[in-house]
Amino acid sequence: SSLLQSLSTMVDVARLCKESMESAKVGTEENKLQNGRDFYKFFFTNFPDLRVYFKGAEKFTADDVQKSERFEKQGQRLLLAVHILAETYANQDVFKAYVRETINRHRIYKMDPSLWLAFFTVFVMYLETKTKLDEATKNAWAEMGKVFNEEAQIHLKNSGL
Amino acid sequence: SSLLQSLSTMVDVARLCKESMESAKVGTEENKLQNGRDFYKFFFTNFPDLRVYFKGAEKFTADDVQKSERFEKQGQRLLLAVHILAETYANQDVFKAYVRETINRHRIYKMDPSLWLAFFTVFVMYLETKTKLDEATKNAWAEMGKVFNEEAQIHLKNSGL
Repeated sequence: SSLLQSLSTMVDVARLCKESMESAKVGTEENKLQNGRDFYKFFFTNFPDLRVYFKGAEKFTADDVQKSERFEKQGQRLLLAVHILAETYANQDVFKAYVRETINRHRIYKMDPSLWLAFFTVFVMYLETKTKLDEATKNAWAEMGKVFNEEAQIHLKNSGL
Repeated sequence: SSLLQSLSTMVDVARLCKESMESAKVGTEENKLQNGRDFYKFFFTNFPDLRVYFKGAEKFTADDVQKSERFEKQGQRLLLAVHILAETYANQDVFKAYVRETINRHRIYKMDPSLWLAFFTVFVMYLETKTKLDEATKNAWAEMGKVFNEEAQIHLKNSGL
């Protein structure tokens, strides 16, 4: 049936995203802290214009990120958030509640609403620096990004943002 | 083997906690918003001394909670956090990172460290107002609370709290 089909797609998306996140583990060990720094090193190097959203770090280089305690912590927070998205995707009520909570927490940064969808493209590019991603996995991230963005845009509208 | 046994225990704990959280769904629909209010109504009625941690709500009754937009939102945040714990428990790196993040976010409230373990007892009592819990499910929550608390206490110590 179409319901069973979409359920199996959702479970596959969750599984593929979770599997690929094995290459970007979070934790207190040095190699896991480095995974987080590496996201911001990649991000700031390839999208320097977006550093404007990081007050005080508008001119940070990859080397500045590497030495920064702030971005060590921020890197863990970012990776944790993406892990939570992957871990909750198969439970859409929880996934969407976490999307809304994430939007609420970013209110103060006055982000361009189009950045929410763009984030997933950037994140997949970062993941590809850590591991080889097959087409199915890239499609899974695109699907998760689409569902995230739909809920994000609805919530932004409902919150008058 | 002992490794396989502890893996299966972990997966069972995750499954039982997730299943029982079906009785406390999050979402934007009225019945799901009510689940969150109901937690704080239960909490403030049964543990009135702990209202001291909620500035401005130190004297709130269940009726005050019911009419409060603040506790409508707080209720969703609380339930979402517990859903995330249940959804991530089978991935201990992510679960423990979320424990540490939760501790960090509560730093400003200067909570008594013993309250982290106590929370799980309170939460199970709340869940029992929503559904019948069998012994295996209660044991699963106790185990999750124990693992949460271990990581919480380590992190509090490492953070000098």
